[in-house]
Amino acid sequence: MSEENSNRTWKGKLHEIIYEADTPAGKFFDVVLLIFIIASIVLVMLESVKTIDAKFHNILYYGEWIVTILFSIEYIARVISVKKPWKYIFSFYGIIDLLSTIPMYLSFALAGSHALVALRALRLLRVFRILKLARYLGASNQLANAIKASRAKIAVFLFAVLIASIIFGTIMYLVEGEEHGFTNIPKSVYWCIVTLTTVGFGDIAPETPLGQLIATIIMILGYGIIAVPTGIVSAEYTKASGDDKNKISDEEHEHIKDLQLNTQCCVNCLAETHQDGAKFCHKCGCKLHHD
Amino acid sequence: MSEENSNRTWKGKLHEIIYEADTPAGKFFDVVLLIFIIASIVLVMLESVKTIDAKFHNILYYGEWIVTILFSIEYIARVISVKKPWKYIFSFYGIIDLLSTIPMYLSFALAGSHALVALRALRLLRVFRILKLARYLGASNQLANAIKASRAKIAVFLFAVLIASIIFGTIMYLVEGEEHGFTNIPKSVYWCIVTLTTVGFGDIAPETPLGQLIATIIMILGYGIIAVPTGIVSAEYTKASGDDKNKISDEEHEHIKDLQLNTQCCVNCLAETHQDGAKFCHKCGCKLHHD
Amino acid sequence: MSEENSNRTWKGKLHEIIYEADTPAGKFFDVVLLIFIIASIVLVMLESVKTIDAKFHNILYYGEWIVTILFSIEYIARVISVKKPWKYIFSFYGIIDLLSTIPMYLSFALAGSHALVALRALRLLRVFRILKLARYLGASNQLANAIKASRAKIAVFLFAVLIASIIFGTIMYLVEGEEHGFTNIPKSVYWCIVTLTTVGFGDIAPETPLGQLIATIIMILGYGIIAVPTGIVSAEYTKASGDDKNKISDEEHEHIKDLQLNTQCCVNCLAETHQDGAKFCHKCGCKLHHD
Amino acid sequence: MSEENSNRTWKGKLHEIIYEADTPAGKFFDVVLLIFIIASIVLVMLESVKTIDAKFHNILYYGEWIVTILFSIEYIARVISVKKPWKYIFSFYGIIDLLSTIPMYLSFALAGSHALVALRALRLLRVFRILKLARYLGASNQLANAIKASRAKIAVFLFAVLIASIIFGTIMYLVEGEEHGFTNIPKSVYWCIVTLTTVGFGDIAPETPLGQLIATIIMILGYGIIAVPTGIVSAEYTKASGDDKNKISDEEHEHIKDLQLNTQCCVNCLAETHQDGAKFCHKCGCKLHHD
Repeated sequence: MSEENSNRTWKGKLHEIIYEADTPAGKFFDVVLLIFIIASIVLVMLESVKTIDAKFHNILYYGEWIVTILFSIEYIARVISVKKPWKYIFSFYGIIDLLSTIPMYLSFALAGSHALVALRALRLLRVFRILKLARYLGASNQLANAIKASRAKIAVFLFAVLIASIIFGTIMYLVEGEEHGFTNIPKSVYWCIVTLTTVGFGDIAPETPLGQLIATIIMILGYGIIAVPTGIVSAEYTKASGDDKNKISDEEHEHIKDLQLNTQCCVNCLAETHQDGAKFCHKCGCKLHHD
Repeated sequence: MSEENSNRTWKGKLHEIIYEADTPAGKFFDVVLLIFIIASIVLVMLESVKTIDAKFHNILYYGEWIVTILFSIEYIARVISVKKPWKYIFSFYGIIDLLSTIPMYLSFALAGSHALVALRALRLLRVFRILKLARYLGASNQLANAIKASRAKIAVFLFAVLIASIIFGTIMYLVEGEEHGFTNIPKSVYWCIVTLTTVGFGDIAPETPLGQLIATIIMILGYGIIAVPTGIVSAEYTKASGDDKNKISDEEHEHIKDLQLNTQCCVNCLAETHQDGAKFCHKCGCKLHHD
Repeated sequence: MSEENSNRTWKGKLHEIIYEADTPAGKFFDVVLLIFIIASIVLVMLESVKTIDAKFHNILYYGEWIVTILFSIEYIARVISVKKPWKYIFSFYGIIDLLSTIPMYLSFALAGSHALVALRALRLLRVFRILKLARYLGASNQLANAIKASRAKIAVFLFAVLIASIIFGTIMYLVEGEEHGFTNIPKSVYWCIVTLTTVGFGDIAPETPLGQLIATIIMILGYGIIAVPTGIVSAEYTKASGDDKNKISDEEHEHIKDLQLNTQCCVNCLAETHQDGAKFCHKCGCKLHHD
Repeated sequence: MSEENSNRTWKGKLHEIIYEADTPAGKFFDVVLLIFIIASIVLVMLESVKTIDAKFHNILYYGEWIVTILFSIEYIARVISVKKPWKYIFSFYGIIDLLSTIPMYLSFALAGSHALVALRALRLLRVFRILKLARYLGASNQLANAIKASRAKIAVFLFAVLIASIIFGTIMYLVEGEEHGFTNIPKSVYWCIVTLTTVGFGDIAPETPLGQLIATIIMILGYGIIAVPTGIVSAEYTKASGDDKNKISDEEHEHIKDLQLNTQCCVNCLAETHQDGAKFCHKCGCKLHHD
């Protein structure tokens, strides 16, 4: 039993360091991890620049292998320190963590797979856990809710944009024709989306007066309908903020402010954002560890 | 009378399959129709790509004829299965359905008319009927109402943009002149709209210092006035959402939530979105069929 | 006295036809005027197109003279039919009406002045008087109020954009230098505004990595700060709509709806938007004429 | 003691002229200063234009030295006329004022440092003090508060944009490759931000069908997510305006309106926006001077 216990403690400590950011060791781990994530992205970027790669190929190559091995160790540590490993492995972060390591190993077998390491950029999302977690997570949740609430309307809007692009694209193909760059309908539709979204690369541009007239209509349309998603998100966001106020009285509001969330993470179910002083996980009831 | 009756039943079944999406057969029909609509659009697009058309001309050509014949059959079925055919024929969807088929037939007589098949893209609007109809239709109605309410203001705004474009366009024609691409006033006005809407193709760009100064004013104007339609739609949308809340008490709101709309479609007047359990059409009083 | 009276009647009738749109003659005059305004703008535009001007020079030239002479007659009629001619002459529309005619006369003396006829575009603003006046004027007033209320904030915002553009423009001039198109600071500032407003012509584009990095910052800044004027106008507009509601009770609101405004225009002070059935001008007390 | 006193008066007068804008001398000083600031910026700009510099090199050179010497004198006057010089020196304006003068002196020692004079543009911010200070400062404070309140959300948003750009940029690098201008990942990421922010220079544009498809997704994404910061600022701004109303009753509001702020500036702590008739600084209690 004592072995079981010491084993438990050892895993618990590891869990605390890797998953949480309340202890000095946990904070240190998170900051080091963040530096390695940024370094790994910079390495991939620099490697793609011909002139830099020619000069520092070996440094970049070994650097990437070091990062990959460290990420692999971290991945294994994450899997063994958690009670339900499969839950972590199939979680959003679990999949990203795995995808950050395997491309390098695959690069022996498959040429080109190497570039998938760009997925490491997704690991940057961890930064929110490190920098004043609660406030930023709250902000991103509020954002996510507003976007979720306006999902159906945004879908209707995007669908309307797509249909308009197909129709206008075909008309432009007929009007401008191949000699002015509108070589086929898919390219015309691409140009139409470039114009409607007010990006306007200028790689293709209408040259006939009629084509320019239709382009004018598309542009004014695009300039006008950008108001639609903006209006939707504004309204939903305002409503969401308003609802929050109505539901929670001022007294309760004070109460909520007093509560301090920490970065503790349940060993059992990986639930986050526990309150300060909480002894048990609010999701699965499993005991949280304290020092 | 029995013939009349069986005829009625036969037409009723057809109506149920084609116009509604509550029965398995109805759902199946809608999904198959959607696939054919997408296939027909992809066919037209691919045909316009020279390299693909050279290789697969026959496949694309016969594919389009198959789609056209199927759409023609569907159109005839829609006409005969409804009580008041003219109402369908002159409805929005009726006209689109017809326009989706005739260009192919016309292509024997008129070269170029073929490309009108792009209008089939409008048939995609049917997708809203298939995917969780009520919610998306509600969303699009809310959108439509907000846009309708701000119609007059948007018109005033677009009119002001147009007048500003004509005046600035003429000024730029005088300042830049023909040697810098501003060959005539209509082209200058076109450039002005390209700039004001922040599209900025770059096919024409001012080159004199004075022209660049005026361009700067136009750009900042365009950057600033995009706030106007956005502000209008936001406000109207917020107001619309607010009004809904005020008009309907919470109890009533619960009641409305309980009501489930289905995709039944009246045989007589083509009215849609009937409530679950409704026995008669809420528009014309005609009996709805149930299984 | 009878001569005085008949003179009065004659002037009154002219006033009614020219300034108002309630009688058939008044409506007819306004529609004809609108057609001539549009025709005059189209004439100027077509004249600037070399190929069209070469073919139809005489038609365009005489057409413009006809329009100019008709506008001159209209201007004189407006001046003599109103009680206080100077009030009209120095009003916004009075100045535009004059500027629409003189460039043609000046074109004998000054070459180039001819192009000023583009100011005729401003006459298009009269269209609001003709098409359901009250509703659109109301909409444009509401817009104008929202813009007026947010004037100070918009000024602060534009000023900040200008200062940022000067600073970033200078930095880009130093970083990119003359060999990449940033030939001097004013041109760099121009490029900076092109980028910040998300227009992006592409006539000048950064080519050094550092320049592209700074361009990235400018773009994200521009993409982000567009939220500021939009947010301001949205908020002001929502507030303005809200205030209207609060000030006017529902009963009063009904009352206002019942009132019908017409296009009568006081002979004395040129005040517009009188109520149906009003006998005296609400601004100067002068008697309005009825048939 | 009399010397002390006269010295005090002399410094007080200087303080009043330089820091405040209520007396004729103070207003005159501010207007002259503003003219010199604008002149100094115009000088730097003109000097960078080769053709102008070739003709008027001496005038521009001496002009800049005159401006620099005047700014140096002003800086010294500001330091000696204030009670706590270090507070001014390390304040925002103090640092800008210093940076406006030193580049010219440095230009003897360091070539290139000269261009730093563009920082003088920041001095333009003083314009707010001169033109109806209180109203504009209020407007900019309201803006600043709305931006401050939405800081966390904007940070989350920008972070998401950055991560999306890195991922999409890498994908585009893989898809388009070096032959179409996507020479390395950093350049691809740069292109991705150009596209996502709807700037669209067109210096690099996708040419493969797959690249254009991905570009389409990026553009629609960019077109859609611009709604997010706009929605946030709108909502925060509306909330801020609403909060102000709730906190202050109508009576109090009237009261506030009656208060007139002036441009007096405390000699001791540099606090601004004192009320008319205030005898003591509301921050440090130091006596304000009156004439």
